[in-house]
Amino acid sequence: MASVSDISVSAAINLLSALAFLLAFAFLRLQPINDRVYFPKWYLKGIRASPRSSGPFMKKFVNLDIRMYLKFWTWMPAALRMPQPELIDHAGLDSAVYIRIYLLGLKIFVPIAILGFAVLVPVNWTGKTLEHIHNLTFSNIDKLSISNVPSGSERLWAHLLMAYTFSFWTCYVLYKEYKIVSTLRLHFLASEGRRPDQFTVLVRNVPPDPDESVSEHVEHFFCVNHPDHYLSHQVVYNANKLAKLVEKKKSYQNWHTYYQTKYERNPKKKPTTKTGFWGLWGKTVDAIDYYTAEIEKLSEEEATERERVMSDPKAIIPAAFVSFKSRWGAAVCAQTQQSSNPTIWLTEWAPEPRDVHWANLAMPYVGLTIRRLLVAVVLFFLTFFFMIPIAFVQSMANIEGIEKVLPFLKPLIEAKTVKSVIQGFLPGIALKIFLILLPTILMTMSKIEGFTSLSSLDRRSAAKYHLFLLVNVFFGSIITGAAFEQLQSFLKQAPTEIPKTAGVAIPMKATFFITYIMVDGWAGIAAEILRLVPLVMFHLKNTFLVKTEQDREDAMDPGSINFATSEPRIQLYFLLGLVYSVVTPILLPFIIIFFAFAYVVFRHQIINVYDQKYESGAKFWPDVHRRIIVALVISQLLLMGLLSTKKAANSTPLLIVLPVLTIWFHLFCKGRFESAFVKFPLQDAMVKDTLERATEPNLNLKAYLHDAYIHPVFKCVQLDKPKAVDDEENNPLVATKRNSRRDSKTGSDGIPETSV
Amino acid sequence: MASVSDISVSAAINLLSALAFLLAFAFLRLQPINDRVYFPKWYLKGIRASPRSSGPFMKKFVNLDIRMYLKFWTWMPAALRMPQPELIDHAGLDSAVYIRIYLLGLKIFVPIAILGFAVLVPVNWTGKTLEHIHNLTFSNIDKLSISNVPSGSERLWAHLLMAYTFSFWTCYVLYKEYKIVSTLRLHFLASEGRRPDQFTVLVRNVPPDPDESVSEHVEHFFCVNHPDHYLSHQVVYNANKLAKLVEKKKSYQNWHTYYQTKYERNPKKKPTTKTGFWGLWGKTVDAIDYYTAEIEKLSEEEATERERVMSDPKAIIPAAFVSFKSRWGAAVCAQTQQSSNPTIWLTEWAPEPRDVHWANLAMPYVGLTIRRLLVAVVLFFLTFFFMIPIAFVQSMANIEGIEKVLPFLKPLIEAKTVKSVIQGFLPGIALKIFLILLPTILMTMSKIEGFTSLSSLDRRSAAKYHLFLLVNVFFGSIITGAAFEQLQSFLKQAPTEIPKTAGVAIPMKATFFITYIMVDGWAGIAAEILRLVPLVMFHLKNTFLVKTEQDREDAMDPGSINFATSEPRIQLYFLLGLVYSVVTPILLPFIIIFFAFAYVVFRHQIINVYDQKYESGAKFWPDVHRRIIVALVISQLLLMGLLSTKKAANSTPLLIVLPVLTIWFHLFCKGRFESAFVKFPLQDAMVKDTLERATEPNLNLKAYLHDAYIHPVFKCVQLDKPKAVDDEENNPLVATKRNSRRDSKTGSDGIPETSV
Repeated sequence: MASVSDISVSAAINLLSALAFLLAFAFLRLQPINDRVYFPKWYLKGIRASPRSSGPFMKKFVNLDIRMYLKFWTWMPAALRMPQPELIDHAGLDSAVYIRIYLLGLKIFVPIAILGFAVLVPVNWTGKTLEHIHNLTFSNIDKLSISNVPSGSERLWAHLLMAYTFSFWTCYVLYKEYKIVSTLRLHFLASEGRRPDQFTVLVRNVPPDPDESVSEHVEHFFCVNHPDHYLSHQVVYNANKLAKLVEKKKSYQNWHTYYQTKYERNPKKKPTTKTGFWGLWGKTVDAIDYYTAEIEKLSEEEATERERVMSDPKAIIPAAFVSFKSRWGAAVCAQTQQSSNPTIWLTEWAPEPRDVHWANLAMPYVGLTIRRLLVAVVLFFLTFFFMIPIAFVQSMANIEGIEKVLPFLKPLIEAKTVKSVIQGFLPGIALKIFLILLPTILMTMSKIEGFTSLSSLDRRSAAKYHLFLLVNVFFGSIITGAAFEQLQSFLKQAPTEIPKTAGVAIPMKATFFITYIMVDGWAGIAAEILRLVPLVMFHLKNTFLVKTEQDREDAMDPGSINFATSEPRIQLYFLLGLVYSVVTPILLPFIIIFFAFAYVVFRHQIINVYDQKYESGAKFWPDVHRRIIVALVISQLLLMGLLSTKKAANSTPLLIVLPVLTIWFHLFCKGRFESAFVKFPLQDAMVKDTLERATEPNLNLKAYLHDAYIHPVFKCVQLDKPKAVDDEENNPLVATKRNSRRDSKTGSDGIPETSV
Repeated sequence: MASVSDISVSAAINLLSALAFLLAFAFLRLQPINDRVYFPKWYLKGIRASPRSSGPFMKKFVNLDIRMYLKFWTWMPAALRMPQPELIDHAGLDSAVYIRIYLLGLKIFVPIAILGFAVLVPVNWTGKTLEHIHNLTFSNIDKLSISNVPSGSERLWAHLLMAYTFSFWTCYVLYKEYKIVSTLRLHFLASEGRRPDQFTVLVRNVPPDPDESVSEHVEHFFCVNHPDHYLSHQVVYNANKLAKLVEKKKSYQNWHTYYQTKYERNPKKKPTTKTGFWGLWGKTVDAIDYYTAEIEKLSEEEATERERVMSDPKAIIPAAFVSFKSRWGAAVCAQTQQSSNPTIWLTEWAPEPRDVHWANLAMPYVGLTIRRLLVAVVLFFLTFFFMIPIAFVQSMANIEGIEKVLPFLKPLIEAKTVKSVIQGFLPGIALKIFLILLPTILMTMSKIEGFTSLSSLDRRSAAKYHLFLLVNVFFGSIITGAAFEQLQSFLKQAPTEIPKTAGVAIPMKATFFITYIMVDGWAGIAAEILRLVPLVMFHLKNTFLVKTEQDREDAMDPGSINFATSEPRIQLYFLLGLVYSVVTPILLPFIIIFFAFAYVVFRHQIINVYDQKYESGAKFWPDVHRRIIVALVISQLLLMGLLSTKKAANSTPLLIVLPVLTIWFHLFCKGRFESAFVKFPLQDAMVKDTLERATEPNLNLKAYLHDAYIHPVFKCVQLDKPKAVDDEENNPLVATKRNSRRDSKTGSDGIPETSV
């Protein structure tokens, strides 16, 4: 076990590397050439102009102002300065609430750490158990943990009392935070401007009708069943193939530009490429000609496909975006059941237009349930048995295997240094690749499950990733061995034995987790702010692809908060903090530093860098809350197991009350707050409607909603159209004419809305 | 272990006792004097007149027609003759669907039994394991069970295959039945006439308002938020105390009548009573004078209380029944969230007026969640630790204890026969009393949980009772020992060991459960049809209390299906059948006889006897379905445990698929059908509204709904009023006037409905 000095060295190294990252960041961000990497948000907002456009040539690339370097740390207070309402306005509620998770960590753990150091550390330190045991290697860290308290000691009452205090404090903070976040959300929803999704409901599983098209069927159904509220609807085209073609064309256009630029810079040599996979093999051809021809071919294909989608009735999927005359009407339709068969005419709030995951809109009910079953089974095997195929790959990918498949590499591999590198490197690489791919795999699984919005996909993936981290990182580290071995040993142990086995291992793993926090937490956050990958990518694109200011705009990759992977990671720190708060309080400062540092960094990032892909209004908070509750219950059960091995069996009945109360607290909060994140209350809808009717009595809502929910592929086309047409479309005065044109195209004969 | 001949004897005894009950029933039901006990339903419907009113004196009491006695079995075909639609019309959907549970048992188990006897019985019989073991006592029953198949035999594949077949068959039948029942329900809801609950929503947790009364607040809120649909509302008075007074007065009036009758029959002796508890001690007084005085006192008290409730604003609880102009409006309000705080303005479909549990209408959210927590904890202890207080009482209630408390009984008790009776009787009596009280205890717990309708109270109590039976009867019989001992041993065993321990015990307990089915099932059902308690009670009341035809009507106790206790008992038979279907198929015929017999008996009872207390439209079916699924999963897990001890470990992966698929099937059915039992689709509401508007354009809905939801205590008063007033109230032409009178009394100033 590591001693305090080992930990100090490790802490120093990690602090230094984090500092190095920070210094590199402080240096790089001041260079004007990197301005678009470190401040893309401001460019997207149109507030910041390109610094290249003025000043002497050198100054465009390198910052020579020495005074600026002396103030390299100013980004930190700057990041903290923006008040929350402005932050919500600037970066959206999702981002503002996301960084509140870090703040929540501070709120929970700072008082716990103070209490822990005031009460538990002295109690543990003077326990003097470990001093008498000489055949055990122990460190000073262990002297500060519960291991130093003798079994059956009266001192354990202090730990019991602290467990209660910490649990109640955590619940109290969680309750307050849930209340704040739900108020923020309601306020946000109430104060945001008119948005198409407020009036629109996504209708799925429109039943087939032999006599009517989908569009007619939808219109008739809602005219009959929501006669006073139905306004219009928008059918959904199955444009998945078209979207792929458009994407492919864009990539070819990028290559075309790349070779064009290359040729312009070096006109002597005509660039060539190979026609095969990734340009690696196949016939060598002139690159510019090849891509020009390919793009032309794709354009034709795209036009044909576009024509087909627009005219073929089979390309219309049985789903539609139905808009209502008021928010009240939409709220009613989204929350009620339409048909006596609950698997057809499914209604839900439409996601924001940019939040829609178009590929998943057409899925029948039976298919959906089978998909969910399969994904659940796959997730179970992925979580518990992922080591088996990786071990198999590892056993394949040894030196003998490589020599067999690629014999010509033999002399190179046999060289001693190379051999040792390969031997050290290969076994780990399969696992590393898997872990890098894991979020993508989980996201694909969520997509298979058929969720219709990007935000819900993110939330579902986060749930899966959280399970994986919990089983494989937390329990996997405590009970050494692969997850499926743990599963086996858990299945063969009594349920009361599991907390004991795990509980006993907890104090021994404290030093490991302290190192983990420093490497994964501290250094990871510092790497986040440096944005190494976007930095390199931007400069590559800038060099080879960028021609106009618009291209440079496109080359920026502001990124966004990756909720699906980063939230489960934060949860791991909550879990560690709660588990060790009673056992080894010395771990808490490391977690507090992580939360504080991450808070500042992410606040800076959401202000200056990230551009959110969608705005769900902090809909993820119930998940965050639930997972912290899970961490709290796990910590209570493990403490129960640990104390029962400490011959403090009389504490078990007292400790068993804690998880029961915690779960009850969770149910209480769920009932109290969750619906604010799921439903839209009629009262609020009515208030907004009334207000709007008073302030804008002549609003043409139909025109406003007309093409809000149109597949982005079709939107691109409309952007290409001449401006005049666009203007005419947005002009409410001529909208009726245009609407009727569209209506007759989709085949509805415009039945009167009063017909019942 | 019992042999086949033992079982035959037991079967014969139970068959004979069941037959005796049936013969007694056949005899008693033909006596005109018992007509109101065995055919109360027809009296309540007004179809059957009292047979006493005509014919010779003797014939009024005893049936002398010999031919009738020869046809004593005719009630069985008569019970089966009524077709289902007529049955639904006659007895309501709840009853008609309730007996379908027995039919479902037949549908599941008849084919399973045929297959089991065709395949498994021969396979087991020729297994020849038990013949070689001589130190074990075994019976012929065991030769027919899986115990007779040698470990690791290839024959076990037959059991595996049958487990799959039986599971799929059960799921198929369950799916079909769910579909039929949900269709029946939707059809029932669509075809039933106008009912107040179709237009009404129960609003709870109306927030307090300093400026307005509850009534005004409700009216304003719904006028604003449902402007086009709100019609009227009915505040709820806290009349619990008044209801108690009315009940007490009624009981006193009964006693008064009783003594009056006694005095009239024997005018020489004035009847006396004692003023103390139950008339057992206290001052001796003249009974008639005493009760006359008491009744007078109570009447005064009642009048004061009635005055107080009607005038005191604090007697109005923060809940109301809000009615809408259309079913569509009510469906929308019931399914949506009204306020951004989800713990106020809670809306749900109003139960039928006679289904309302008035005492529970006022409960704040926090109190409700705490109550549910407490009830859950109490239920846990009740289920697992109920034996502890009973054992304590048993240890107290021994002969020495009685002699100590009541020393004068000593000589009597010491008599040998008395002593042996007490010793044999006393230990059991505490348990028996507990088991008799259990349904009442569970119902009280459900009432504490705060449910607002009798039907939901029944369903919740059934869930609790099901848990109790599952743990204490099923698992308690398999793993002998009290439930808390089981709990302890389960907690200390590995989760994979539990199915093994239980699975191994399964075949050995077959004979026990066969006897159980015969005693509890066969004889219990036969006792049900005899109606011994109502028979005795009716004749007692008839002798002492009945004076007028109305009194006789009141003396009838038709009873109703006691869903809370009888449904969990049926579930026990489903569980036994599914568990033993693969292990000991010989048990199945006993279960089939139970289901067939119970089906006929209950069909007879719901046609001729029961008068349902409420009509929930088969809302209990999702519970029934879920519990059969639970039974199926338990049977699959136990079979897995059993087979793993049979050295058929390679079957485990195949068997683990079954529960996963079964649970998925349950989720599938839940999504597919459950909402038909929870929500009312807008489409159906709109169809009914449109139809009604077309057929009855001049309907005065406000008058129709005016006093639909009034506490039954106030209704009684209105019944006492002269008929003329009643008629005026029901007359729609004058209703408006009366409504405005009522409105001004409750304090609403009638704000215009168009105000927003």
